[in-house]
Amino acid sequence: MSDALRVALLGCGVVGSQVVRLLDEQADDLAARIGAPLELAGVAVRRPAKHHDVPAELLTTDAEALVTRDDIDLVVEVIGGIEPVRSLLMTALQHGKSVVSANKALLAEDGATLHDAAAKAGVDLYYEAAVAGAIPLLRPLRESLAGDRITRVLGIVNGTTNFILSRMDATGAGFGEALAEATQLGYAEADPTADVDGYDAASKAAILAGLAFHTRVTSADVYREGIGEVTAADMASARAMGCTVKLLAICERTDAGVAVRVHPAMIPRTHPLAGVGDAFNAVFVEAEAAGSLMFYGRGAGGAPTASAVLGDLVAVARNRVSGSRGAGESAYADLPVQPMGEVTTRYHVALDVSDQPGVLASVASAFAEHGISIQTVRQEGRGDAATLVLVTHSAPDAALRATVDDLSKQEFVRRAASVMRVEGMAADR
Amino acid sequence: MSDALRVALLGCGVVGSQVVRLLDEQADDLAARIGAPLELAGVAVRRPAKHHDVPAELLTTDAEALVTRDDIDLVVEVIGGIEPVRSLLMTALQHGKSVVSANKALLAEDGATLHDAAAKAGVDLYYEAAVAGAIPLLRPLRESLAGDRITRVLGIVNGTTNFILSRMDATGAGFGEALAEATQLGYAEADPTADVDGYDAASKAAILAGLAFHTRVTSADVYREGIGEVTAADMASARAMGCTVKLLAICERTDAGVAVRVHPAMIPRTHPLAGVGDAFNAVFVEAEAAGSLMFYGRGAGGAPTASAVLGDLVAVARNRVSGSRGAGESAYADLPVQPMGEVTTRYHVALDVSDQPGVLASVASAFAEHGISIQTVRQEGRGDAATLVLVTHSAPDAALRATVDDLSKQEFVRRAASVMRVEGMAADR
Repeated sequence: MSDALRVALLGCGVVGSQVVRLLDEQADDLAARIGAPLELAGVAVRRPAKHHDVPAELLTTDAEALVTRDDIDLVVEVIGGIEPVRSLLMTALQHGKSVVSANKALLAEDGATLHDAAAKAGVDLYYEAAVAGAIPLLRPLRESLAGDRITRVLGIVNGTTNFILSRMDATGAGFGEALAEATQLGYAEADPTADVDGYDAASKAAILAGLAFHTRVTSADVYREGIGEVTAADMASARAMGCTVKLLAICERTDAGVAVRVHPAMIPRTHPLAGVGDAFNAVFVEAEAAGSLMFYGRGAGGAPTASAVLGDLVAVARNRVSGSRGAGESAYADLPVQPMGEVTTRYHVALDVSDQPGVLASVASAFAEHGISIQTVRQEGRGDAATLVLVTHSAPDAALRATVDDLSKQEFVRRAASVMRVEGMAADR
Repeated sequence: MSDALRVALLGCGVVGSQVVRLLDEQADDLAARIGAPLELAGVAVRRPAKHHDVPAELLTTDAEALVTRDDIDLVVEVIGGIEPVRSLLMTALQHGKSVVSANKALLAEDGATLHDAAAKAGVDLYYEAAVAGAIPLLRPLRESLAGDRITRVLGIVNGTTNFILSRMDATGAGFGEALAEATQLGYAEADPTADVDGYDAASKAAILAGLAFHTRVTSADVYREGIGEVTAADMASARAMGCTVKLLAICERTDAGVAVRVHPAMIPRTHPLAGVGDAFNAVFVEAEAAGSLMFYGRGAGGAPTASAVLGDLVAVARNRVSGSRGAGESAYADLPVQPMGEVTTRYHVALDVSDQPGVLASVASAFAEHGISIQTVRQEGRGDAATLVLVTHSAPDAALRATVDDLSKQEFVRRAASVMRVEGMAADR
């Protein structure tokens, strides 16, 4: 058994307090698995008086001093946000501490700076907990699939929005009503913007794309639409074509590089992701040799996230004991990120039209003018209640959007009742 | 870039030929990910004339000479079976080669001997491909969940039997008919014994239990029943209670140690494993902090299995480049394996009975005599066509079996129409 490795914990909220609990309860197992005991040596918090679960002598408000202490080997960060965390972690890395972080926003905005600092200092930077909580995902992408060629990652990576969409699907509720229920049940925060507008999912998409395609991708590279515009009519329209609506993080290897986007999309109910309900997360990975894989579990919550943090902590501690370092960042491929307008997608479009001769021909030619072919079209209702429902084949997103714009201006179109991208159809898989 | 690492491949069948293809097609990517090129330096096969895809000068029939060659760094084994593979891999490890194997039978029967040899030589022994093909599973269990406490693993780990049971469920076919279809479609081998009788799944269960519970478990420790006795009546009975039948590999941490078993079981259709159809594999993992996780994908086939082999090859090659070694075997917990009779399970029992006063009371007291409480009971039909369908609460398996034996001897029981264990009910989760 080697000497104890000393751990500094930055932040002690929902996740941090679970990390403290697990470090204590699993101490013997962790020591046996690492070959050295882990010892909690300090916990940086804003208001020490609030933290009764942590021995008072471990608490400090001076995170900077904690991460530079000579006796600290490993730093765990569960504060979140960009600053002051970036500076703290840079200091920690520069002082030779290995870092485990659950900070998706920081890793997605500026992972490169941290990775470079870790490489320079010869220490580890691990962050499994940053994406999809307890679900082992980054390690499988980075290591298990290291001999394969990942072509596509489709993920439900935000529990709040998945809960809202699942409720809208199950009950026919509108977005506002489902959001209110999510808030009441504690699935949505008081300010749900980061979740509902897709910022959280976009951070995770950037991290996933970076690992999957060995390319640096930041949150600014990710095309993003939230679920605030998803209506009960969209849900009904999805159901009518055997689909449901999910907020998807989509990372694709394309001929032109990589495409990374977050938006609501209709997916067939037969797709494995369609059955992922409530606040669960799941990530569907397509690789050339491995075929289709799916990873499913709890994407958030104190204990599940702490489980992922502890797994990383064991890994970096083992590396420390053996004097080695994990694989580090792999960005050798350095692929360009394709603008959203050029990414090929498929659209579902429901148009309320005046049911008069030639309408279908006019609609079809609007699509044809933009070089888009239509896969299916059906008319619902007659007369003033007529709706044309179309699903296109794949085409550049900009062309699809332009077509819908053109159509919306036509006299015979009363309104575009539902416009949404479609993913996961058999032809795409 | 370090010097090339030289790879010896043992076996070049369905999986091996895909390994050869991927080593060639992904050469640049693999080199970038490892920090050194991989070079295929020799391929041991029985009949070199059969292998046109491999440069003739690489082929040899002398595997022993190949794995002892000084210029070989890494050995990949995709032959399968116990001997001569065990001797070959022992020789390779003793000569300082790191080993990647897809050999579930060998790892499950005698992994300890190989692990000890690897540890002694300071080299790696990886075998992700041995369980559930392309699905990253061993690495997540061993590393991602290393800071958590796994309580239960429920897996569909044999594609052949899952195909057969899925067909029986979908079409009402009997076992023989579904097996014939599986054979015709190439999902079952000419001699399907290893799959149908659960030997293949038992090897995988032993490997999973060993990793999940840090304890040495061999295939001889695994209680095993195949699917040959599953009838169309069982399927119908399962359907009537909202269940389907799956061949499950079940690894549990119990108060008395670990329990490892493979048998057909009814699981609720709402359970995530129930939807895993065709020849797909999926493994459901329950951990104290992480909660429920599921891993899903292709469990067999040349390319998927080769993907897992290549992932391991990248890992051991990286370790070689950095002069380190992976985590190795972790068997510190050394828990006893509980005999099947003591393992608590739940039974579904359908009894064809003569419908006369007092029958239910007699049945209930037979269970009570063995200390088993009944969760639900319902009677189907009347008179000579009466069937009592019971689901018990958890009780020791031996007591449940003894009760069914006792009941079968009762005059009022015409026959036990269906007896099967039940898993994955909400109360167990």
